[in-house]
Amino acid sequence: MNEVTVGVLGATVTVGQRFIQLLADHPWFKVTALAASDRSAGQRYADICHWLPSKPMPEGVRDVIVRPTEHDPDCQLVFSALPSGLALPVEQYFARAGYEVCSNAAAHRMDTDVPLLIPEVNANHTALIDVPRHRRGWRGFIVTSANCSATQLTLAVKPWQDAFGLCKVSVVTTQAVSGAGYPGVAAMDILDNVIPFVSGEEDKAEREPLRLLVTLQDAQVANAPFVISAQCNRAPIRDGHTEYISVEFERKPEIGEAMAALEGFHGPPKVANLPNSPTQPICVQKEPDRAQPIRDRDAQKGMSVSVDRVRPCPVFDVKVAVLGHNTLRGAAGGSIHNAELLVAQQWVT
Amino acid sequence: MNEVTVGVLGATVTVGQRFIQLLADHPWFKVTALAASDRSAGQRYADICHWLPSKPMPEGVRDVIVRPTEHDPDCQLVFSALPSGLALPVEQYFARAGYEVCSNAAAHRMDTDVPLLIPEVNANHTALIDVPRHRRGWRGFIVTSANCSATQLTLAVKPWQDAFGLCKVSVVTTQAVSGAGYPGVAAMDILDNVIPFVSGEEDKAEREPLRLLVTLQDAQVANAPFVISAQCNRAPIRDGHTEYISVEFERKPEIGEAMAALEGFHGPPKVANLPNSPTQPICVQKEPDRAQPIRDRDAQKGMSVSVDRVRPCPVFDVKVAVLGHNTLRGAAGGSIHNAELLVAQQWVT
Amino acid sequence: MNEVTVGVLGATVTVGQRFIQLLADHPWFKVTALAASDRSAGQRYADICHWLPSKPMPEGVRDVIVRPTEHDPDCQLVFSALPSGLALPVEQYFARAGYEVCSNAAAHRMDTDVPLLIPEVNANHTALIDVPRHRRGWRGFIVTSANCSATQLTLAVKPWQDAFGLCKVSVVTTQAVSGAGYPGVAAMDILDNVIPFVSGEEDKAEREPLRLLVTLQDAQVANAPFVISAQCNRAPIRDGHTEYISVEFERKPEIGEAMAALEGFHGPPKVANLPNSPTQPICVQKEPDRAQPIRDRDAQKGMSVSVDRVRPCPVFDVKVAVLGHNTLRGAAGGSIHNAELLVAQQWVT
Amino acid sequence: MNEVTVGVLGATVTVGQRFIQLLADHPWFKVTALAASDRSAGQRYADICHWLPSKPMPEGVRDVIVRPTEHDPDCQLVFSALPSGLALPVEQYFARAGYEVCSNAAAHRMDTDVPLLIPEVNANHTALIDVPRHRRGWRGFIVTSANCSATQLTLAVKPWQDAFGLCKVSVVTTQAVSGAGYPGVAAMDILDNVIPFVSGEEDKAEREPLRLLVTLQDAQVANAPFVISAQCNRAPIRDGHTEYISVEFERKPEIGEAMAALEGFHGPPKVANLPNSPTQPICVQKEPDRAQPIRDRDAQKGMSVSVDRVRPCPVFDVKVAVLGHNTLRGAAGGSIHNAELLVAQQWVT
Repeated sequence: MNEVTVGVLGATVTVGQRFIQLLADHPWFKVTALAASDRSAGQRYADICHWLPSKPMPEGVRDVIVRPTEHDPDCQLVFSALPSGLALPVEQYFARAGYEVCSNAAAHRMDTDVPLLIPEVNANHTALIDVPRHRRGWRGFIVTSANCSATQLTLAVKPWQDAFGLCKVSVVTTQAVSGAGYPGVAAMDILDNVIPFVSGEEDKAEREPLRLLVTLQDAQVANAPFVISAQCNRAPIRDGHTEYISVEFERKPEIGEAMAALEGFHGPPKVANLPNSPTQPICVQKEPDRAQPIRDRDAQKGMSVSVDRVRPCPVFDVKVAVLGHNTLRGAAGGSIHNAELLVAQQWVT
Repeated sequence: MNEVTVGVLGATVTVGQRFIQLLADHPWFKVTALAASDRSAGQRYADICHWLPSKPMPEGVRDVIVRPTEHDPDCQLVFSALPSGLALPVEQYFARAGYEVCSNAAAHRMDTDVPLLIPEVNANHTALIDVPRHRRGWRGFIVTSANCSATQLTLAVKPWQDAFGLCKVSVVTTQAVSGAGYPGVAAMDILDNVIPFVSGEEDKAEREPLRLLVTLQDAQVANAPFVISAQCNRAPIRDGHTEYISVEFERKPEIGEAMAALEGFHGPPKVANLPNSPTQPICVQKEPDRAQPIRDRDAQKGMSVSVDRVRPCPVFDVKVAVLGHNTLRGAAGGSIHNAELLVAQQWVT
Repeated sequence: MNEVTVGVLGATVTVGQRFIQLLADHPWFKVTALAASDRSAGQRYADICHWLPSKPMPEGVRDVIVRPTEHDPDCQLVFSALPSGLALPVEQYFARAGYEVCSNAAAHRMDTDVPLLIPEVNANHTALIDVPRHRRGWRGFIVTSANCSATQLTLAVKPWQDAFGLCKVSVVTTQAVSGAGYPGVAAMDILDNVIPFVSGEEDKAEREPLRLLVTLQDAQVANAPFVISAQCNRAPIRDGHTEYISVEFERKPEIGEAMAALEGFHGPPKVANLPNSPTQPICVQKEPDRAQPIRDRDAQKGMSVSVDRVRPCPVFDVKVAVLGHNTLRGAAGGSIHNAELLVAQQWVT
Repeated sequence: MNEVTVGVLGATVTVGQRFIQLLADHPWFKVTALAASDRSAGQRYADICHWLPSKPMPEGVRDVIVRPTEHDPDCQLVFSALPSGLALPVEQYFARAGYEVCSNAAAHRMDTDVPLLIPEVNANHTALIDVPRHRRGWRGFIVTSANCSATQLTLAVKPWQDAFGLCKVSVVTTQAVSGAGYPGVAAMDILDNVIPFVSGEEDKAEREPLRLLVTLQDAQVANAPFVISAQCNRAPIRDGHTEYISVEFERKPEIGEAMAALEGFHGPPKVANLPNSPTQPICVQKEPDRAQPIRDRDAQKGMSVSVDRVRPCPVFDVKVAVLGHNTLRGAAGGSIHNAELLVAQQWVT
């Protein structure tokens, strides 16, 4: 296989930096273009980026000259960390122009002819790629990765949907500040505090899992047939969202069966061998007090979700605590994982 | 009315310190006795107490000589901040010996002949005081205040129980570290972290509200006829528990009605005039992002609970965020409030 | 005495909010005008202010219509919380127009004909008020309060300057995020972190104490004859700056003498009776581990500085830890305190 | 070279865990024995260790049966993370019995016949190993690594001592909570706070660098001929100590020379090739706001110290901010680094 040349749109924002960090040593992808706002264009990446990850900026991008977003980049595939308003026209333009777009933006996630993907969950939804090629005349395509909260929720309940059917899902989150980008949350608002509100998040967490967990044949017309209620909150944590989930099933399992379904989960074989696929997409723990951001967010390079406290729920059937890394699996890592799937399925060649 | 002489059991622990802080200028109660472990006994309070509240230690207690817990204190009423294991025998001994005991310990909360009280919620449960006088031969009595998480949950749903009936309540908490006492939670466990586990808390949050919200005639034999599921979590916050609550009602209200029920709530007239009664037991807010620990925990001296984000729930009927001060209303303030009720009802004279 | 009508410039910024909080029940001053940026002008204060203090917004200002900064306010005295660039022309305009300006901005602090004041330190520097009246034709005047770090440093070393003379002062700070205003420091930059840089702060901390501690006769031409080195740092703390100070004296005292000088310190008699004067400007403690933000920042309504760990320094003579409230004594409280001094000295009538 | 079998004393404490994490894949050392308190002895390591590092416990130690500390371990070299009181007799016993002891404890650091070592600083001090063999009859030996604050201070000023000579050093620290072990600092004491006290730390930071920076010929009788003043403080940070250092030199350099001395620093050639030697022991940065715990503590696997803000000091000559990882370079990593030096020098064969 030849190396795929890739670009990053929104290269200076929090998620854009994670793209660059994760692509630094990628076996299949080579970063050849970085784009950011006009204000940054024309300058060295190292000169205009306020680098946030704890690992240093990769040497390979320090001297790259940043291009304006609208500029046709010198690459085959683009990763998009654009804000939603900008992503809508820009990503469509790129798709029409023949680029392959792997977007972390919300702009096209709910389009019924654009795949919203998690490789272990709905790898076959990539079949939708052909739809807008005919319908909208795109020469390239767009695939999207889900919102961070929706991603880990979907991964955690996917084995249960398969095994027992889902009726009702109630989820409450405590979300890390990195999810709000940079500068994002003000220190004065979050030190010694929790904020019971994350703009736009509850809607995404209630809707996106239904798109991800629907069968392919229904994907263009319907959602998965269950209902979600989400309450999303911001906490003084750098990285890692925790979700407290209660589920009512169609066929009520014993706790042991519910746990076994989680432990036995793996994606399709083709997915298991992708460079960013974790050995276990779901790490089930049996300690009294996990999953925790500081102990579990980096599990399997931040690409697995940790589940603990699987126990009966007096109101629903089962409740659990779920932890995922919001800017790795829940953002840049998810989009790169999608791109890897596209390579494996030969949509990207 | 004469001043009531009071003692504090567990005077050096976190909640004991809050008792002392709140009793410093109390119009009805005068602290005449402090008790702590044998290790501390015989010494000046100021010399052995690692004082935690941000306000300085009241001058009046600095020179008080701490007595052992088992020592008969020179006072009429005792507030108990004892750990549960110790509270069980000690509080019973004090009740038999004729003391009036207002306990914040869990030891007797679920006894069907000992009142578990929140003045605005079930002031008439004090009628149970006579039961163990006959049954157990107590010359004094014990009344208990509820667990911190249970207290603010009960206050928040009480107006809805009255107006619409409750079927199912799902609650997730993020709880302050002060709830674990001192030294309590290790900094290494909670900085940049959330822990999805608080020992013993979920059981209390699921059971105590049912005792508080049952009618007096059922109190000795039954619980209120609805079900609660609780998921309790520790967060890096000094004071103030937040609860994310979803409720299914017997008679489903409009959102406006649900909010009006909260806004119109007040306790019985006799309760409204107690020294520690807040003007509004429930502060309903209409901002997008409240209730928050740093902004709302001190509302009305920490004795009201703040409710915000009253909105429809796709799975249940209504969901809200609720904030209360865990060591004021949820602990020492609650017990003192109970003692004030007992004075107003002439159980304490 | 008649009530003095006052206005607040920069009414919506962090320090402006502290002005409003502290003026709410002031015995001498009545807020009659609020000014903010053009964007906010014409609207109710409650509608446009993101209120940050933990105490609720005072009722009296909720309905006040905010005016543009340049608008001549309907009041006698104005408190300025303006950013420095704006403060320079605006405060001069107001002084020319006859207003009495008590500024917390840095713009005029180093002007040799404008008093930089801390009432307990250099109350007689108000005599400078007459200089620009003649020299610059001002009908009103400007007096300034010092930078937060400089204020608590100056208060802490003032007794030692008086008693022993100062040669060298080395100070390192850990400063609260509230000092950077709002939104100010990003959560992503400060959670689990310390930043060894506060823009412009070291220069202020090294220069302003020399202006404050010079004799009146030298104030127009010189600085106090000692040297300061400051290293200023930001820490994840809401309110309260800590300073680690080492001092070399002209006449080296015993530790007991150094402590006695601090304990015996009080301002001039006229200052002691001002409404915002603390009983003790310096609270000396003798515990092993104070002064701390959470335990000491609210001492005497945030208007005193706490000093602990007075001990010999192997390199200089004495070293100590000093804690002060940066937005109370170190900002709004300091300016209001200055205004009170002006009333007591009859510069404001 | 044969693999050296090693044991860890104090295997369950914070530093002991870091030893185990760092030894997991070590090219020269193989963990064959773990020792902890009697309470833990006889059990699987995974069953009794509250594992704190964010990376999972190494598989190789999970099933190791922990032995009591006094038990002669089945290994050649032992790393000691014992508390000082216990370390004193135990380490001497092991040295007499022929074990090679690399200790992170304070017990023997100030012994003039026991090397206190930082490989880049005073590798030739290992010559002292022979002294107690004769004087005390030890068949094995003890070498010690320095206190965390002393380590990074010493590394940072070593190039300046060599180039310009040191007269006076003033250092203020903000130290991470991991330095206090586990449970260590209570969350209630440190959230939203800084504590101006770390038990025993100032004495170590003032004395140990003088032992490390003395010439070998003076090591048994004297200290390096300069003076240090330290003020040590605890901050709400998980890992990474920051030090604000001012230095007065014998021969005052220009700032550029001071910076060049830091940038050009490297240890002896034999040290540069040790497995845990960083490429640059000192990372000099030229950004306005480094060095920071979250951005710099993991530099070169936590084994280098970061220096930034090299600037003139109005009171001394030069001041800087220095960041080091307190449980890696400052504790377990330092002791393992020492052991590597001993292998390279053939004291361990």
